Amino acid sequence: MAQQHLDPTDPTAGHSPKLSATKLSATLEQGGPPTGDALAGYLRAQATEFLRSLRQHRETGTGGGLPARAESKTGESGSEGSVDAARALRRSARRISGTLHTFRPLLDADWSESMRPELAWLSGTLAREHAYSARLERLLGALNRLSGTAGFPAQAGSAATAAPKSNLTVGAAKAGALLDRQLTLARTRAHSAALQALGSSRFHAVADSVAVLASEVPLTPAAATTDLRPAAAAAEDRLLDAVAALPLVTAGHPYNAEALVHGLSADTVPHPQDAPWHQVRLLLRLHRYAREVLYGEGMPGPSDGPLLSAGQSLNRHRDAAEAASAAASAARTPRIAPATAYALGVLHADQRHEVEAARFAFQQAWQQEAAHTL
Amino acid sequence: MAQQHLDPTDPTAGHSPKLSATKLSATLEQGGPPTGDALAGYLRAQATEFLRSLRQHRETGTGGGLPARAESKTGESGSEGSVDAARALRRSARRISGTLHTFRPLLDADWSESMRPELAWLSGTLAREHAYSARLERLLGALNRLSGTAGFPAQAGSAATAAPKSNLTVGAAKAGALLDRQLTLARTRAHSAALQALGSSRFHAVADSVAVLASEVPLTPAAATTDLRPAAAAAEDRLLDAVAALPLVTAGHPYNAEALVHGLSADTVPHPQDAPWHQVRLLLRLHRYAREVLYGEGMPGPSDGPLLSAGQSLNRHRDAAEAASAAASAARTPRIAPATAYALGVLHADQRHEVEAARFAFQQAWQQEAAHTL
Repeated sequence: MAQQHLDPTDPTAGHSPKLSATKLSATLEQGGPPTGDALAGYLRAQATEFLRSLRQHRETGTGGGLPARAESKTGESGSEGSVDAARALRRSARRISGTLHTFRPLLDADWSESMRPELAWLSGTLAREHAYSARLERLLGALNRLSGTAGFPAQAGSAATAAPKSNLTVGAAKAGALLDRQLTLARTRAHSAALQALGSSRFHAVADSVAVLASEVPLTPAAATTDLRPAAAAAEDRLLDAVAALPLVTAGHPYNAEALVHGLSADTVPHPQDAPWHQVRLLLRLHRYAREVLYGEGMPGPSDGPLLSAGQSLNRHRDAAEAASAAASAARTPRIAPATAYALGVLHADQRHEVEAARFAFQQAWQQEAAHTL
Repeated sequence: MAQQHLDPTDPTAGHSPKLSATKLSATLEQGGPPTGDALAGYLRAQATEFLRSLRQHRETGTGGGLPARAESKTGESGSEGSVDAARALRRSARRISGTLHTFRPLLDADWSESMRPELAWLSGTLAREHAYSARLERLLGALNRLSGTAGFPAQAGSAATAAPKSNLTVGAAKAGALLDRQLTLARTRAHSAALQALGSSRFHAVADSVAVLASEVPLTPAAATTDLRPAAAAAEDRLLDAVAALPLVTAGHPYNAEALVHGLSADTVPHPQDAPWHQVRLLLRLHRYAREVLYGEGMPGPSDGPLLSAGQSLNRHRDAAEAASAAASAARTPRIAPATAYALGVLHADQRHEVEAARFAFQQAWQQEAAHTL
C-alpha cells in the first residue's frame, strides 16, 4: 500500500551517496567554497538512499503483522535483508534530519521545521527494535563472560534447564532468562510498533516529503551563493563547547570509579552523569554529517580516524549505560531469587564499568583528534 | 604472666632498628660487602622491637577475655595503643621470619627452620582481627560511595533504621548491616583467638626464642665472612621471575575487564587468577626486607619509591580481592532479600574492579621501578 510513495526512487536508483560525494569534492577542488548546491546534492543523495532502503525493506520485510516467533533465535524479528534495510533507512533519516538542522538558514524554514520531528519519530521508531535486540545480546554476552563458562548458552531459555553447579551459576542463568524474557518482549512490541508506523499515514507523509527532497531541495533564494562553512563551523563549535564541559581530566584517569558512583542510589536511574556524554554523542554526529556535506561521505578528512573512534566510544557509552539500566530494572522484578538479583547486581556494575571504559576511550580518541587539529 | 619473657628487652630498649640501620650503612660505606654481622645486627634490632611491642601490647591491651562491646564502634576491639602494639609486633615478626628465610644458609638451620612457622602462626593470628575490621571498613566505605549519599552512615546498624527511599537504597543499607554483622562476629572471634594465643605456652616459646635472638643470633661459623649479597640477589631473582610470569601486558591496558571474568562462576572463590599476584606480594616483601638488611631500614635505596608503591598496589589488590570475596559470601546467606543480594552483587563487582585497578597501578609502578634499575 506504500507503493505509490516509492515510485520517485526509480529514476534516481543509480545515484549512490558516494558518487555524489565524489562530485562534491571535485567541486571543492575546482575552487570556491561549498554552497547551497553542495547541500542540495547531499540531501538529494540521502533522500534517494532513504527511498532505496524503503523499497528494499518492503521487498525483504515480514510485510506486516507480528514477527514470526521462530525467527527470534537470530536475535532479530525480521529477515536479515529487512534488518539491513531498516538500518540504512535510519542512517539516511538521521543524515537528512541532522543536515536540515545544521544548515537550516539555507533551507525553507517551514518545510524543514515540519520535517525534522517527523524524521526523528521515524528513525526513533525504527531504532527501538534493534536497540532491544543489541541490548539483550550485550547483556547475555557479559553474563557469559562473567560466568567464565564457555558453554554458557547465549539463549538463556536453554541455560535455565542446563544443570548448574551452584547458586551463583543458577543466578547467572536465571538472570539471563529474565533479561531474555523482558527484552524479547520489548523487542517484539517495538517490532509491531515499527510495522504499524510503516503502514501509517504519518509515515506516508514523511515518505512523500523525502520523495520531493530526492528531486527538488527547497533551498532559500540566497542559498546558491551562501558559503556552507559558517554553519558547519557553528556545529563544530557547539560540539567543542559540549566536550569542554565534560569531565575529561577524570575520564582520562583509568579506574576513577566515577561511573558507578550512585550505582546503588535510588534517584539516579538513568544516571544524570551520563546526559552530557549522550549530548556530545549527538553533537559529534551532527558535526560528522556537516563534514560529509562539505567534503563528501567517501572522502575522509584529516582527523576522521579519531573522530570516528570518538563516536564509536560514545555509542558504546550509550549502549553500556542502557544495558546497565536494563539490568537494574530487571532486578526490581518482584519475587526474583536472591541469586538472580546478585547476578543482576554484578552485571549492572560490569556495564557501568563499561560506561567508564568508554569515557576513557573517548578521552584518548579526543586527545588524538585535538593533536590533529591543533 | 608473660612477664618473665619480657625481661630481656630492658637492657636493649634504647636500640631502635633505625639506629642499627644507620650503623650498618656506615659499615657498608667503610668498604667491604655486608656480611653476617650486618645480618645479626638487623635480626637483633627486629627482635628488640618485637619485645618492645610485646611489652607495650601487654601494658595497653585489654588484658584478656572478650573485647568490650562498647569499643566496637571504633572498628577495633582493643584500645588504640594495643592496636598499634599489635601492628608493630606483626611488623617485626614478619621481618624476622622473612630474614630467616632469605639468609638461611648463614643461620643455624634447625633453629631457624623451627622458628619460622611459629612466627608465621603468631603474625597470622594477630593479623586476622585487623584484617576483618579493615575489610568491613572498606566494604562500608564502598557501599557509601555507591549509594552516593554523603549521609549514608558508616555503621550500618543505624543505617537500617534510617528512612530509605527505594528498594535499592534499602538494599545497600541491608547489605551494610549484613556485612557489619558477619565481619564484626568474625573480628570478635579473631580477637579472642589472638588473646588466647598470646596467653598460650606456644606463644611463650616464641617469645623466648625472640628474646634469645635479641642478644645472640645463632649464625653459622662461616657467616661472619659470608657476603650477604648473593642471598639477597636470589630473593630478588625469585621476585623478578614471579613478576615476569604475571599478565602485565593485559594489566597495563586500562579497563581490560580481566578481574571480573569468572565473577559469577561457582568454582572460583577465591579467584585462582589472584594467586600469582598474592605470591608476588610476598616475594616483594622478602626483597624489601633483604634490602633493609643490606642497606638499613632508614636509608632508602635508589628505587625504593616505585618498590614501595608497587607493594602498596599489591596490598590494595589483596584487600580488594578479600573484600569482593566477603561480599560474594554474604550474598550466599540464606533468606536474604533480593535487594540486599543485588547490592552485594554491585559491591562484589566494584571490589573486583578495585582488584583490576590495583593490578594496573602495580604495572605502572613496576615500569617505573624497571626504568630505575635498567
